[in-house]
Amino acid sequence: MEQILELLNNNKMAEIRKLITEENPVDIAEFCEELSREQCLKLFRILPKDISADVFSYLSIEKQQEIIEGITDSELKFIIDEMYLDDAVDVVEEMPANLVDRILRNSSVSTRKLINQFLNYPENSAGSVMTVEYIALKNSFTVGEALEYIKKSGIDSASYDTCYVIDPKRMLIGNISFKSLVFYDDVLEIVDVMETNIVSTTTTTDQENVAELFRKYDLTSMPVVDTEERLVGIITIDDIVDVIDQENTEDFQKMAAISPSDEEYLKESVFSLAKHRILWLLILMISATFTGHIIRRYEDVLQSVVVLAAFIPMLMDTGGNAGSQSATLIIRGIALGEISLKDIWKIIWKEFRVSFLVGLALSLINFGRIVVFERVNAQVAMVVSASLFITVVLAKVVGGVLPVVAKGCKMDPAIMASPLITTIVDAGALTVYFGLSTYFLHIPVNV
Amino acid sequence: MEQILELLNNNKMAEIRKLITEENPVDIAEFCEELSREQCLKLFRILPKDISADVFSYLSIEKQQEIIEGITDSELKFIIDEMYLDDAVDVVEEMPANLVDRILRNSSVSTRKLINQFLNYPENSAGSVMTVEYIALKNSFTVGEALEYIKKSGIDSASYDTCYVIDPKRMLIGNISFKSLVFYDDVLEIVDVMETNIVSTTTTTDQENVAELFRKYDLTSMPVVDTEERLVGIITIDDIVDVIDQENTEDFQKMAAISPSDEEYLKESVFSLAKHRILWLLILMISATFTGHIIRRYEDVLQSVVVLAAFIPMLMDTGGNAGSQSATLIIRGIALGEISLKDIWKIIWKEFRVSFLVGLALSLINFGRIVVFERVNAQVAMVVSASLFITVVLAKVVGGVLPVVAKGCKMDPAIMASPLITTIVDAGALTVYFGLSTYFLHIPVNV
Repeated sequence: MEQILELLNNNKMAEIRKLITEENPVDIAEFCEELSREQCLKLFRILPKDISADVFSYLSIEKQQEIIEGITDSELKFIIDEMYLDDAVDVVEEMPANLVDRILRNSSVSTRKLINQFLNYPENSAGSVMTVEYIALKNSFTVGEALEYIKKSGIDSASYDTCYVIDPKRMLIGNISFKSLVFYDDVLEIVDVMETNIVSTTTTTDQENVAELFRKYDLTSMPVVDTEERLVGIITIDDIVDVIDQENTEDFQKMAAISPSDEEYLKESVFSLAKHRILWLLILMISATFTGHIIRRYEDVLQSVVVLAAFIPMLMDTGGNAGSQSATLIIRGIALGEISLKDIWKIIWKEFRVSFLVGLALSLINFGRIVVFERVNAQVAMVVSASLFITVVLAKVVGGVLPVVAKGCKMDPAIMASPLITTIVDAGALTVYFGLSTYFLHIPVNV
Repeated sequence: MEQILELLNNNKMAEIRKLITEENPVDIAEFCEELSREQCLKLFRILPKDISADVFSYLSIEKQQEIIEGITDSELKFIIDEMYLDDAVDVVEEMPANLVDRILRNSSVSTRKLINQFLNYPENSAGSVMTVEYIALKNSFTVGEALEYIKKSGIDSASYDTCYVIDPKRMLIGNISFKSLVFYDDVLEIVDVMETNIVSTTTTTDQENVAELFRKYDLTSMPVVDTEERLVGIITIDDIVDVIDQENTEDFQKMAAISPSDEEYLKESVFSLAKHRILWLLILMISATFTGHIIRRYEDVLQSVVVLAAFIPMLMDTGGNAGSQSATLIIRGIALGEISLKDIWKIIWKEFRVSFLVGLALSLINFGRIVVFERVNAQVAMVVSASLFITVVLAKVVGGVLPVVAKGCKMDPAIMASPLITTIVDAGALTVYFGLSTYFLHIPVNV
């Protein structure tokens, strides 16, 4: 690529053209991102036609916009018609209004119609991630006719192996792999050799459920039908990889108390980042008030045995961590379809036993540590350790149960992650702590 | 499936055999899981041969073991040789030693050799996820010879479209899609029509890096070569989906302070769950001691203005949440390849501005709230709110920086997630809090 940059600086365009066809379009796009507006445009316009649409679809929105502004209407028309339709739709969705106008004006009638149709599918639905580049064979075809049809319609039209069979109303009735088609006898009827056992989905299905089906049946592509069961597109597994990445990012964000955002961190504005973070911080800050009230209620206890305050952070942190461990495992299990509401008793029983073991170990170690190293008297150490044990058990059971309950109430389990669990567990931990302190250390409380 | 269950209870095996071939192997496997040992075995043995290996590979380890124990050596041999090699290796890895012996004794010499070779690849390497079912064409072939070869070697041998071209030493020299092969003239030389621009990987490459390449180049399959550049297998995108799920689960676990484990939650033993959780809880509990020491150092401050204790949970929780928001976004950005060490200054500057906005808003609201609702005097409210502001800024900058630093030190960024950030931020928050308190509330400290 350095060689190409040098040639570009010396305007040796013919030589570049020769070199660049050897490169992967993804790498060419990456290279373009580093170039100035003028150089990028210069390079883009000498790309062989069939590569240019490919490179274009891998560019960032900013570069795409620069290029659209710099090329002629006929060049634009070529690129839009040549791109995969779902990529073209992505471009249209991101461009400012005046460029969208120009794009739609310069695309063929059928492309324009399809783009408009795609823009109407709900966000994150199967319709919005599907592609219309697939092979549909008529049920009246013989194997020979099918192959002839595929040859004529262009071999590039689908990178996957599966061909779909439709009836005269475009209803999906079967599928067949291109490989087996090639090796069948030409005179056989398509309907006699096709598979009829097909996993399909509808345009309005949530992409998360589609990903679930891909996982379950180990699929590489899946047909999408409309409300009248007509074949309208296919979803391929490379788009499902993007869906999985996107859904995981969303879960990570929700679990860290951030309102989900699609933007890359480095590209998102400071204001937008702040906006996505402040709501949950505010809610959780105000919830923490309750914990503060518990402390205020027991101010006398703290006044009498001020050393008790020193163990508040340890209790709160350990409780929060213990709870978020459980919540995370359950949330992840639900996301992968391994855990559902009916498992709630199993989870409670399991978390109870795990937390018993973990809580016991931690509180014994803690007891030894504070008696020996912190030189606190055994009575106080006992209260601290007992509180720790109860906190860990409470945290783990609550952390395990809440995500499943959320799922049961049709809420997103990821909301019940460490921040919320921490806030809930904090209040419980301090109530237990001060309760045990008053009782065992014989401190009178003025309530 | 209910119909099949009834037929099974009435021993109408011929009818089941007719019905079950209509079903997807994944669904048959799911159905088998619900059956008793005897019924499952009965059903499995009447499955058509070509379906049985497929169903077997979708069963749980427990069921697989039951079946292996119940079938004859020749049935076992058939299944092992018919399964995809990577699935067979998974079975061997999970079975107890006596069954592994029986499996290896009953597999063909070539399968046995391959299984042993696979068992030697490092865990999570490209070698351990690749498959050996692919089409390799000799570079001396014409297009016609290639098609003849593919037909002879069995069309099932690869569900993907790409065929690989190798030289006499099995070195990978190109690839070509099956579709284009079919439509080229039979007399053309393979080497004249193949693509030479191939993205490949080696057996020892980490699976995470392989997934990265699939994402970057939108691949559906990728050839794997050994240290001598010989083609030894391919990785297909459906296995990459499993890799992505696995890597994400690992990140979720690490970010919740759990030592990573591959087991499904409901299947993992209580003891194993406890073992994976206790180490980090212990480390973090002991780290929280430092925070306790800060409180003990300022015991006099607390004794004089005991209301200060009531705001400790709010400060600690908000600081922890603010820090883990930043850490999560950065960790996710690194995992998706969007952020690297060179972005560290951008991150610091961005987090500083975001935290300034967020911290300002939170502390203003907090000031109003505690003066009006908690009836705390303005001086204390000022100290609390100023501490809150500084804590949020500190937490976000630390939370943003530590994961990148970890990455720079070749550590896993996911370790620098909320639990560790919380512990670090707690200490900072309390130091600031008591520092400001002593200074502005004029409380003498005995150090």
